[in-house]
Amino acid sequence: MEKTRTDAFPITMDSLERKETICIFGTGDFGRSLGFKMLQCGYSIVFGSRTPRMSSLLPNGADVLSYSEAAQKSDIIIITVHREHYNFLTELTEVLHGKILVDVSNNRKVNQYPESNAEYLAQLVPGAHVVKAFNTISAWALQSGALDASRQVFVCGNDRKAKQRVMDIVRGLGLTPLDKGSLMAASEIENYPLQLFPMWRFPFYLSAALCIFFFLYCVIRDVIYPYVNKNEDSTFRLAISIPNRVFPITALTLLALVYLPGVIAAILQLYRGTKYRRFPDWLDHWMLCRKQLGLMALGFACLHVLYALVIPIRFYVRWRIRNLTVTQAILKKEDPFSTSSAWLSDSYVALGILGFFLFVLLGITSLPSVSNTVNWREFRFIQSKLGYLTLILCTAHTLVYGGKRFLSPSILRWYLPAAYILALIIPCTVLVIKFILIMPCIDKTLTRIRQGWERNSKHSKSALNAKSDI
Amino acid sequence: MEKTRTDAFPITMDSLERKETICIFGTGDFGRSLGFKMLQCGYSIVFGSRTPRMSSLLPNGADVLSYSEAAQKSDIIIITVHREHYNFLTELTEVLHGKILVDVSNNRKVNQYPESNAEYLAQLVPGAHVVKAFNTISAWALQSGALDASRQVFVCGNDRKAKQRVMDIVRGLGLTPLDKGSLMAASEIENYPLQLFPMWRFPFYLSAALCIFFFLYCVIRDVIYPYVNKNEDSTFRLAISIPNRVFPITALTLLALVYLPGVIAAILQLYRGTKYRRFPDWLDHWMLCRKQLGLMALGFACLHVLYALVIPIRFYVRWRIRNLTVTQAILKKEDPFSTSSAWLSDSYVALGILGFFLFVLLGITSLPSVSNTVNWREFRFIQSKLGYLTLILCTAHTLVYGGKRFLSPSILRWYLPAAYILALIIPCTVLVIKFILIMPCIDKTLTRIRQGWERNSKHSKSALNAKSDI
Amino acid sequence: MEKTRTDAFPITMDSLERKETICIFGTGDFGRSLGFKMLQCGYSIVFGSRTPRMSSLLPNGADVLSYSEAAQKSDIIIITVHREHYNFLTELTEVLHGKILVDVSNNRKVNQYPESNAEYLAQLVPGAHVVKAFNTISAWALQSGALDASRQVFVCGNDRKAKQRVMDIVRGLGLTPLDKGSLMAASEIENYPLQLFPMWRFPFYLSAALCIFFFLYCVIRDVIYPYVNKNEDSTFRLAISIPNRVFPITALTLLALVYLPGVIAAILQLYRGTKYRRFPDWLDHWMLCRKQLGLMALGFACLHVLYALVIPIRFYVRWRIRNLTVTQAILKKEDPFSTSSAWLSDSYVALGILGFFLFVLLGITSLPSVSNTVNWREFRFIQSKLGYLTLILCTAHTLVYGGKRFLSPSILRWYLPAAYILALIIPCTVLVIKFILIMPCIDKTLTRIRQGWERNSKHSKSALNAKSDI
Repeated sequence: MEKTRTDAFPITMDSLERKETICIFGTGDFGRSLGFKMLQCGYSIVFGSRTPRMSSLLPNGADVLSYSEAAQKSDIIIITVHREHYNFLTELTEVLHGKILVDVSNNRKVNQYPESNAEYLAQLVPGAHVVKAFNTISAWALQSGALDASRQVFVCGNDRKAKQRVMDIVRGLGLTPLDKGSLMAASEIENYPLQLFPMWRFPFYLSAALCIFFFLYCVIRDVIYPYVNKNEDSTFRLAISIPNRVFPITALTLLALVYLPGVIAAILQLYRGTKYRRFPDWLDHWMLCRKQLGLMALGFACLHVLYALVIPIRFYVRWRIRNLTVTQAILKKEDPFSTSSAWLSDSYVALGILGFFLFVLLGITSLPSVSNTVNWREFRFIQSKLGYLTLILCTAHTLVYGGKRFLSPSILRWYLPAAYILALIIPCTVLVIKFILIMPCIDKTLTRIRQGWERNSKHSKSALNAKSDI
Repeated sequence: MEKTRTDAFPITMDSLERKETICIFGTGDFGRSLGFKMLQCGYSIVFGSRTPRMSSLLPNGADVLSYSEAAQKSDIIIITVHREHYNFLTELTEVLHGKILVDVSNNRKVNQYPESNAEYLAQLVPGAHVVKAFNTISAWALQSGALDASRQVFVCGNDRKAKQRVMDIVRGLGLTPLDKGSLMAASEIENYPLQLFPMWRFPFYLSAALCIFFFLYCVIRDVIYPYVNKNEDSTFRLAISIPNRVFPITALTLLALVYLPGVIAAILQLYRGTKYRRFPDWLDHWMLCRKQLGLMALGFACLHVLYALVIPIRFYVRWRIRNLTVTQAILKKEDPFSTSSAWLSDSYVALGILGFFLFVLLGITSLPSVSNTVNWREFRFIQSKLGYLTLILCTAHTLVYGGKRFLSPSILRWYLPAAYILALIIPCTVLVIKFILIMPCIDKTLTRIRQGWERNSKHSKSALNAKSDI
Repeated sequence: MEKTRTDAFPITMDSLERKETICIFGTGDFGRSLGFKMLQCGYSIVFGSRTPRMSSLLPNGADVLSYSEAAQKSDIIIITVHREHYNFLTELTEVLHGKILVDVSNNRKVNQYPESNAEYLAQLVPGAHVVKAFNTISAWALQSGALDASRQVFVCGNDRKAKQRVMDIVRGLGLTPLDKGSLMAASEIENYPLQLFPMWRFPFYLSAALCIFFFLYCVIRDVIYPYVNKNEDSTFRLAISIPNRVFPITALTLLALVYLPGVIAAILQLYRGTKYRRFPDWLDHWMLCRKQLGLMALGFACLHVLYALVIPIRFYVRWRIRNLTVTQAILKKEDPFSTSSAWLSDSYVALGILGFFLFVLLGITSLPSVSNTVNWREFRFIQSKLGYLTLILCTAHTLVYGGKRFLSPSILRWYLPAAYILALIIPCTVLVIKFILIMPCIDKTLTRIRQGWERNSKHSKSALNAKSDI
């Protein structure tokens, strides 16, 4: 145990003059971890506690004093106390006057209180400069040094100098401060660590629902139907054959759903004749999660590609081909070559490959570091031009896959059409509407509306759309 | 309509004291969107207009005043007026003295004017502190909040404090300011949103040209030749067989072209005996777009991999193999196993896989966020050592693919060699020259030249290459 | 030669007032390159040299003076001299008083000297403000402008204003400064460019050792054994068959080794009854390179996928299937369909695909730009929940691959079991222990320990784990 304590001090420590003293209120797990880390980085630490007793749990080299004594030792006081217990600070108003209070607290729920903890703290101790920081860092990460996750520390505060000093300390601990502006940003910063992929929730549930629906649909057509009608056991299809139908269908549907809200928005704007009315909330929300929908679709497309490429390795496929060949050999019949079949098969595969390739490109450009190097014009080019090209290629891939089968009567089982026909409904609808929207006459009106023109505007346009203004 | 207006104010608004007042000159689309966004984020907004009339298009809660009245209300004035109409500002010189003017304008063409708009503004109103910002953000993105693209706002200006205040506002709007230094950076910032992948243009046209050339070449050899000579219909090859030749050839050629300029530069430096003479412009330009060339090559390599992996699914391939087997079965002939064929086939595939794998690694390390975590030594190791290894593996893949066929006379059709032989010319040349360059005697001279030594230098080397200096 | 010199000045130069004058001590390669670049960016440059003679190697437009004369011309002096020759600066203490000295030096070895060069410089010239910068940038990159690698310049220093001015210059050169805090960070900054993937070394050697071991193991079982026993030449298996066994085995073992240290750490904590004792060094080091181990495993998994997908293209496989079919056709025997074989084959492939897909997802989220957008909770969810799911799927993939073969006696050759059985040892162990650890009774104790509870603690818990503290 003693060994650990001394380990905390790097050997070079003694040769360096100590940096400033920092006070930490509270001796909980996070407070101790932070103190440990700060000692390691050359700061002096004073703990403030209700019951100031030295304990072997606290990092060696740190003092433990009462709150008011500890506060006097330093300009910067880090409050590692739960918000519910902030009221003891009101008694210290005098001591804390002019000091920098760093709020590190988190809540248990998003928007648990009407105002953020940091703003509440600022109201409690009006004379102090409150800075929000460190709440996104975990105690474990601080202690182990294994910061695989984000090294970013969001910092906000109303006092520029106080914020600067806290940001210097953040840097001194080997972390990256990110200035988020004034204390108004605190509630956002406090909600941040509580989130679990909020933007992914709707796309995730939607694709799960689509997957389950299409899976059951395929099970009925491909497993139950042959069992009922011919007493065939096709359950082995559940592992690869059926997923390899469900995944491409889900992928194509989700990809079309990425472009559907844009088309709906354009129709709404055309109908209303203005862009200055808000879209309904569901449309707004839908538009905001298009990236996530697209990435979900990409995931299913990747799965489809893998499932399609393993086809020739499958036992069932090898068995079927072998038997086909053996039968043919026994009958001594040569199979004539059908150029049209070769064309259909090759072009449907080629369309799929090209569509998938563009889709992966779209995915790569949506990586944060790539999309940051791209300007608005380039982003629009990729997401809209390349995106529609992807949708066209993938839809064509499915259409050619259907090929001659569309008209075959054997395609209906219990009046249910093949699943890929269902998959084509939304993409074809989106593409047809988009095709109408880009026809010159309609496109011109839409462009004018998007530049701020209004059909029913009674207002003096000269003032508002003055050619001189941007 | 009225509903929308009130929606603009978050509910928490009233409980917060308003932040500073900001003045916006111009009531165009961008000005209004910016005003909207700023109101939402808690700023007070005053619009300055030539014809100061309140209008329902302007965000509710904002005032509209004449230019000079509006300017008096705020320290910070955002000029959302086209550069051509800046001259009205000269009349306001007195009011604008000491104020921060934010130039948000863009031009229609790259380098449209001799100086940047922001510098022009600074000349027009010498007493004001001009800061360039916000020009990379679109009005639509501001309004909808759907900032899928970059949230980065480039900021530059000569006055540090003015710049700081504008950067604080940028952060207050939930965007990320990026300090680009003094106003000299303004022309670069203004050109930025007009670019459409400028670095990709040459690689794109080059690979398009290569693709088309090799496609036509293969069409002549594989479609027209059999049609003319044997009256065979091989058009179905256009969909997969021929692309699967064109793509690897283009990929290999492009990859070799990534390393060719480095080799040429080394030869030039050896020939000149100095590194202090500039390379010809074409070589400079070529060297600067090597990354893009490499990524293009990677794209084609990916397509080749996909096209190669679907081979066993193709109708034509299945038909051919089936017929081959049937013929063999009818003749009751056992096919003896050829170890050398197995070796050739397996090793060419293995070389291709390893080459592709390294190629993908190279691609991943060229992602901005990855290459930022890598130091110069590591970057050189990856791009040069791993890069050459990739080139060697991919060239070997093609060589082994040729295998025994190189010497076969049937390979020429209309005196045209197979396309893969053409593909080998540049890579082999690059590898041979590189091999010569890394021979100790030559490598030593080159290293000395690159450290600053000059063959024909008459100057006192003691002063310049003093051992003490870096 | 003359042409080059004038090229260095952009045409727009004359129209701009010159920015500040910067002094560079030393006329070596890096000093000249930096001077060149700074002149291009509009700064005035004065070189300080022991033997102040103008030379055609120096950029035109720069002056060369003696050290003390040059120092008087500027507030900022960049020291491009090797650390060994810093002593001449002691004579200039007076002239350098209050100036900003920029240390750009690097060492030949990591931690070559007890203190960093910048700290040494600060000791030598106590009156100056030392700032560390530019050491990560190469002379070649500065000159050619081809900054493909990182544009980041790490800056540190004790004086805030001095650091700010240096960071402004960095930005002025089109580079990105990164504030690393006080001069204490200098040794880290100086070690940075000397590193060659330090975190990757252990994972790399480990996977190389695993690969070689399993390769030799498979060679003995699959090449030497058949040669000795049946005199069969199976050497062609070296190219694809054997790597396609070695790669998945290595991948699975490495993936299990990612999760093994976490399990060991949990057992240690349970045994010790506290989290406040350091783990042994080997465990600490192991835990810190888990990300690299995982990415290595992902690399091998990718190779395995590629090797598995090319199976049907291989000459050997085609030959074997053809002969099998021919034999069957000659015997006129129909092969009955085995549903259980189809199930086994399909489900093992499907498990592999799903495991690989999740593995790639894990890899993508470990990209720096992606993991920066993810909070701690989301990161833990991905790396721990999804990570274990990946391990379970991949282990199940291998188990089902074994399938019925586990019990077959023919599996032993020279008493050696099949390689995939060895591959299962570590993953199964990890999964079993993890399963035990998440059982409610044990999980509860572990959670309490991780929240700071100690089994044998005699200290007043009320003070330390006060409910009020975080």
